[in-house]
Amino acid sequence: MIEYDGTNYCGWQRQANGTSIQESLENALATCCRLPKVTVTGSGRTDAGVHARGQIAHFQAPHDHLPVPRKILKSLNGLLPSDIAVLRVARAPDDFHARFDAQARRYHYHVSLQPTALDKSTRLQVRCEPNFDHMNAAACQLIGRHHFGAFCRTQSPTQNRICRVTQAEWIDERGRGHWHFEITADRFLHGMVRAIVGTLLEIGNGKRAIDSIAAIMASQDRRMAGPAAAPHGLVLEEVIYSAPLFREVT
Amino acid sequence: MIEYDGTNYCGWQRQANGTSIQESLENALATCCRLPKVTVTGSGRTDAGVHARGQIAHFQAPHDHLPVPRKILKSLNGLLPSDIAVLRVARAPDDFHARFDAQARRYHYHVSLQPTALDKSTRLQVRCEPNFDHMNAAACQLIGRHHFGAFCRTQSPTQNRICRVTQAEWIDERGRGHWHFEITADRFLHGMVRAIVGTLLEIGNGKRAIDSIAAIMASQDRRMAGPAAAPHGLVLEEVIYSAPLFREVT
Repeated sequence: MIEYDGTNYCGWQRQANGTSIQESLENALATCCRLPKVTVTGSGRTDAGVHARGQIAHFQAPHDHLPVPRKILKSLNGLLPSDIAVLRVARAPDDFHARFDAQARRYHYHVSLQPTALDKSTRLQVRCEPNFDHMNAAACQLIGRHHFGAFCRTQSPTQNRICRVTQAEWIDERGRGHWHFEITADRFLHGMVRAIVGTLLEIGNGKRAIDSIAAIMASQDRRMAGPAAAPHGLVLEEVIYSAPLFREVT
Repeated sequence: MIEYDGTNYCGWQRQANGTSIQESLENALATCCRLPKVTVTGSGRTDAGVHARGQIAHFQAPHDHLPVPRKILKSLNGLLPSDIAVLRVARAPDDFHARFDAQARRYHYHVSLQPTALDKSTRLQVRCEPNFDHMNAAACQLIGRHHFGAFCRTQSPTQNRICRVTQAEWIDERGRGHWHFEITADRFLHGMVRAIVGTLLEIGNGKRAIDSIAAIMASQDRRMAGPAAAPHGLVLEEVIYSAPLFREVT
């Protein structure tokens, strides 16, 4: 389980230009396990600037010479830069796959209604207070099994654009003008949460009708939804599997 | 009301070497109010590296040419660096004093029981999980009117070392290994919260007896208490006055 501050990264996935979380992890793992090369598979990609508190990834390696999970955890955190932290390490069944076995993912999108100094790298500052209840009434319409093509980046190669959203709600974090949007689904398309948040904020600001979500989804047209909200407010909170991955906490 | 990330500052108070929060605020205020010099008085000082979410400060200036509070707020946040944010500005009664009128202050000290990437600038990572209940049993003994000389920096010139603590408890922030210590008192001595947290963590780790707080306080000797916990976990959360300062939210 990995936590990272995505501010200085080009995203989860290894890329030619820019440092990725995946590459940093693979390099640290290769060093700590004394392997020439390690390939890490994440539960899913996160975009440049997006953070995670509960990313899950797996790698395969010969059991024989591998340090025990507890030692890998300690050694990895010593090797990784301070904006990537490995929270837990466990031996998984041989057929475990971080992406294919994941049953759901949960994201949080954080906003601040006032200027912020301490949370500026993880919260979008919204200048005009949106209508909380209107945004939640609109968010309800996302729940269920729908075509989310209107909330998917147009250049995404993914064919299947059906997702089952099981939770979509704005939470008021006990005062201080801190709110966040929680969304859980079996899968997410490229740019989906940020497009949804951008659209809900427009509804909250009265620029769109509260009941416009259904029509946007029916259009399957990205141009019908709002602009993508900035990446730094988004955090991959949790990846859910059918069985707990870390029964033996290390 | 001011929020700041103290990481890159020498503390609240203006100093010869290093940039202070006070100096940054005074410079921004002088520019925005077109005054040759502004002196800002805070509710109290915070040490180098300590943060605030609710610091209160006042300044005096001739009413005539002053912009309205709403404009000062906007202009200040445009002028200040991104690690200082002014949350609210209001006109106060002529005799208001941010320090002398404050009836109580509340601090939070944040710890993480696991490695952390997203909260590393505001949480102390504790490597060995302290006993939560033991720390809370010890914290209870702080409540009341006591001599806190044992928790005050020896070089502090403050003569009166009596404080009335009205709240002192550890809170578990719903999983993820995030805890914080909340303490409210009429006044705080120099280095007091960090010395208390350092002592409570030693109690939590079994290095001191749960009932040792009373003897430490009675000693009035700084050497009897534990080491100061690192500054970056500490946040001045709230300064309490007898009347609300920001009735008209700007």
